[in-house]
Amino acid sequence: GVSKKILVIPGDGIGQEVTAWGQKVLSAIAQNFKHEFTFEEGTMGHVAIEATGQPLPDETLEKARKSDAILFGAIGHAKYDNDPTLKVRPEQGLLKIRKELGLYANLRPIKLFDELLEASSIKPEILRGADILFFRELTGDVYFGEKKRTEDRNTASDLMIYHRYEVERIARKAYEAARTRRKKLCSVDKANVLEASRLWREVVQEVAKEYPDVETEHMFIDNAAMQLIKDPKRFDVVLTGNLFGDILTDEASQIAGSMGMLASASVGDSTGFYEPIHGSAHDIAGKGIANPLASILSAALMLDISFGLKTESQRVIKAVEATLRQGFRTMDIANKHTENGFIMGTDAMGAKVLENLN
Amino acid sequence: GVSKKILVIPGDGIGQEVTAWGQKVLSAIAQNFKHEFTFEEGTMGHVAIEATGQPLPDETLEKARKSDAILFGAIGHAKYDNDPTLKVRPEQGLLKIRKELGLYANLRPIKLFDELLEASSIKPEILRGADILFFRELTGDVYFGEKKRTEDRNTASDLMIYHRYEVERIARKAYEAARTRRKKLCSVDKANVLEASRLWREVVQEVAKEYPDVETEHMFIDNAAMQLIKDPKRFDVVLTGNLFGDILTDEASQIAGSMGMLASASVGDSTGFYEPIHGSAHDIAGKGIANPLASILSAALMLDISFGLKTESQRVIKAVEATLRQGFRTMDIANKHTENGFIMGTDAMGAKVLENLN
Ligand SMILES: CC(C)[C@H](C(=O)O)[C@@H](O)C(=O)O
Ligand SMILES: CC(C)[C@H](C(=O)O)[C@@H](O)C(=O)O
Repeated sequence: GVSKKILVIPGDGIGQEVTAWGQKVLSAIAQNFKHEFTFEEGTMGHVAIEATGQPLPDETLEKARKSDAILFGAIGHAKYDNDPTLKVRPEQGLLKIRKELGLYANLRPIKLFDELLEASSIKPEILRGADILFFRELTGDVYFGEKKRTEDRNTASDLMIYHRYEVERIARKAYEAARTRRKKLCSVDKANVLEASRLWREVVQEVAKEYPDVETEHMFIDNAAMQLIKDPKRFDVVLTGNLFGDILTDEASQIAGSMGMLASASVGDSTGFYEPIHGSAHDIAGKGIANPLASILSAALMLDISFGLKTESQRVIKAVEATLRQGFRTMDIANKHTENGFIMGTDAMGAKVLENLN
Repeated sequence: GVSKKILVIPGDGIGQEVTAWGQKVLSAIAQNFKHEFTFEEGTMGHVAIEATGQPLPDETLEKARKSDAILFGAIGHAKYDNDPTLKVRPEQGLLKIRKELGLYANLRPIKLFDELLEASSIKPEILRGADILFFRELTGDVYFGEKKRTEDRNTASDLMIYHRYEVERIARKAYEAARTRRKKLCSVDKANVLEASRLWREVVQEVAKEYPDVETEHMFIDNAAMQLIKDPKRFDVVLTGNLFGDILTDEASQIAGSMGMLASASVGDSTGFYEPIHGSAHDIAGKGIANPLASILSAALMLDISFGLKTESQRVIKAVEATLRQGFRTMDIANKHTENGFIMGTDAMGAKVLENLN
């Protein structure tokens, strides 16, 4: 067996409820497969601001650097959303840890479990067989460019900026992945308007030459946002920048039936960082009804990508599949055919997955 | 009857094919209702670059300033999309005319014709009754902020910037419209990350106070991109910036069944500017199969918004409805039930609408 140190950061809102289940699944896998996973806990986001004044306390960052992988929950709080003038904000913690750990590639696999064909607002015949892997650049773009506010507070700006090396390194990762899949890559930008996108397109065109076996397509973000819903099956690997990736992957959650099903892996220089795509969802936080599957599937991604434990990762995915096949659903993925006794809260659903793991 | 000067700019690609039908419908309305519409033609985009070297020739801009309204087709060409290093680009023409004419508010109504319930990739029960009016800010944001490329060409940037007055004036327009509708306004931004969005949210919160009868909601762009597909009926008026509006309205075309159905009105200081949401669509240009309904519905918007001719505008919309009810479809809105003889090209479809107008 292997020995790994995992940092767990539940964060805000439903992060507190679902992340426990990602961790329990990792523990169960360790036991079943005779690995040794040791867990530490860290704090980040609104909860960290309340406790320490900092969205990302130094202590958490230290622990993060020393861990082999990180399981994260969610970030954000309505208080800050309602008051845009607040200076210290939860999201700064997430952005800082991404930057500090060099997590420049955010992988977001979008794949529908057959059992959830009915849960989506999109027609089953459009969805069946859709399988997309997003590569979202995660440490550049307008997220990290200089922010300014004039003294009279009447003008505000953010710099959308990309450097050649930033585009190159994530493009290579995306092309490598495309090679192991259906060998199609769609790069999304707004090169008809934005200079940063024109650089993006130039660099992707160059990198594309190194991968003549992969079919490359360039698409404008507005068109991509439409095509994703019109014909999701046309996509294999999608490569895009930080902002466009944020938007497209949330939108793509409808392909998977619900946001509550989607996991993501952020990788780069060293430690991998795993988190659900969903946010802190304050409207349902504390009610025990959040879907724990995205956190559990984030744990599966960790096993695969950071630890190279493919069998273990598949075991987790199969357990989720089995749970869905047995008819169990959290509210977000229930549909009109779901029988009453089969709609569960977070803990009951998590427990079913654990059962199916053994 | 009224007397109006209309500038027609077909532009690039299918713009050349569909805009003729918007104009024919305007002519027919003039005749039926005893108005006097005089038409001039202008050039813009790739066709203008080929002819004059300029994406927006001075002559076109002159004519635009002197006209009461403008009917525009589409812009763009694959040549420029494939070569991001070209300095003179068709889209610069469109951006320049928007800026020069002060067209800061882009209205994009998204409403499904009942007859097209089946044409969408989204389930009919999710769509039925959806009716959204987008207000997209059109002369600010990262579209117009300073663009830079370093001398070594390895770094590129665009400034995402908003001024208070820009947000204020479009927010007011959107609130006024909400008052005449279901009295709900959703403002979309990314205030958890972007300073420009935080200014946006502050200003909308202030303007909201002047409209206590309208229910205001603030939503992050990633969430909005998801909600739009998950539950389009929750939206009434959506207010957003230039870039986010570009993305969301293209995505929303799936609510209307096809991009080929959507018209838009750009208004501001004086002359109104009317155009389909779809682009130049070079893959189908010259084949005579493009859907002319978006151009025809753009003409309907012109009659209503620029000329205040509501009866005439309704007459056009009814003619489109009647055509769809008779079963006629262009390729993009055909579905598996459409009988063969009812699938038409651009001109046959346009002619059917003209027939139904009389
Ligand atoms: C919380 C927020 C800063 C974050 C982002 O925009 O990156 C989230 O939406 C995500 O996608 O991980
Ligand atoms: C052609 C392009 C510059 C334009 C835009 O991005 O504004 C188009 O997509 C639109 O939505 O009108």
